[in-house]
Amino acid sequence: MAVFTEARHARYIIGKCRKGADLLEEITSLCAAEGVKLGRVEALGAVQKARLAFYDQAARQYRSLELDEPLEITSLVGNVSLKDGHPIVHAHVTLADAEGRAHGGHLVPGTIVFACEFCIQAMEGAELTRGLDEQSHLPLWKMD
Amino acid sequence: MAVFTEARHARYIIGKCRKGADLLEEITSLCAAEGVKLGRVEALGAVQKARLAFYDQAARQYRSLELDEPLEITSLVGNVSLKDGHPIVHAHVTLADAEGRAHGGHLVPGTIVFACEFCIQAMEGAELTRGLDEQSHLPLWKMD
Amino acid sequence: MAVFTEARHARYIIGKCRKGADLLEEITSLCAAEGVKLGRVEALGAVQKARLAFYDQAARQYRSLELDEPLEITSLVGNVSLKDGHPIVHAHVTLADAEGRAHGGHLVPGTIVFACEFCIQAMEGAELTRGLDEQSHLPLWKMD
Repeated sequence: MAVFTEARHARYIIGKCRKGADLLEEITSLCAAEGVKLGRVEALGAVQKARLAFYDQAARQYRSLELDEPLEITSLVGNVSLKDGHPIVHAHVTLADAEGRAHGGHLVPGTIVFACEFCIQAMEGAELTRGLDEQSHLPLWKMD
Repeated sequence: MAVFTEARHARYIIGKCRKGADLLEEITSLCAAEGVKLGRVEALGAVQKARLAFYDQAARQYRSLELDEPLEITSLVGNVSLKDGHPIVHAHVTLADAEGRAHGGHLVPGTIVFACEFCIQAMEGAELTRGLDEQSHLPLWKMD
Repeated sequence: MAVFTEARHARYIIGKCRKGADLLEEITSLCAAEGVKLGRVEALGAVQKARLAFYDQAARQYRSLELDEPLEITSLVGNVSLKDGHPIVHAHVTLADAEGRAHGGHLVPGTIVFACEFCIQAMEGAELTRGLDEQSHLPLWKMD
């Protein structure tokens, strides 16, 4: 069975990122400034370029993907938890290019905002802390 | 830093669109009829055909994309705010074709529902109103 | 107009699936074990392989899609309702491959988790029950 915990709603933070901002860093900074330690993130918008990662499950390491073109963010789905005592945003994005083809992956720094509208839902509950998972070598939640 | 406001949950409206309806117009009409002025929208389903747009960031105008085939809606992520005093739904969709290839973009009228299940979360809070943003030429939220 | 009902928030269940689990079955089992009869599901993560379906709207039947490679889950959007008295999870996923290309469709059993973080929002309200829709031949909500 899946492992899980319960969380309670705290508040909704709705807004927009600045043009030229680093998408992941902007959302992470906002969570830190507003004391969000647990929560959900969703967003839509457009980026000037994207930096993603794909996890190579056999080699157990991330591979970088660089998309140096304007793209629509058709979805950003993420969560907020803690790593080394600080809020960390784990987000995956789906992006569409000028021909409407979709791309996607794990969001990393270097993805630059053109326009982006987000909704962060801050939650309260048990602390969810990321630590190295031996099996996958990913920084998963310590909750077993 | 991002600009933001707080919002409070009001209610959830869960339902399905009619077959043959215009996806964006159906959700927008429902928001207007139910008095939703601020909120979130998510949906999944299928469309008979899709009309999307890609924002050309250099030319500062939308380019139309026409997908004249049945497609699964793998995600619809959107929000509700106000423009000229009326609820406006801003939504981006990701769609998958018969071979499983994904496409996506900014949802515009002309996308015809085959089946669609949605969840609209109505919120209360400061009014978020769209107006022309000089920098991007997009109708962004006036909240600076 | 769309047909709809109102729902009230009950609780949030946040967690992770086990490596090697069947993604759809794991989330469905959790909903059954926790008594979730109505709700929303969202997730991100990665799978070892995926089994999807595309609904052939003309032939009125699902076509299977097999993606036998590791993929990132860039979004999982779904809902929980009832079918034959048991919780049923209807979810669509968007997946990205090693080159960042996105794929997607209706999630079916056979999609194997590598890592997956989910948020299930349990709700209360009118029972939403799936039954055969004559027009589409899909198991849609009986709410007309």
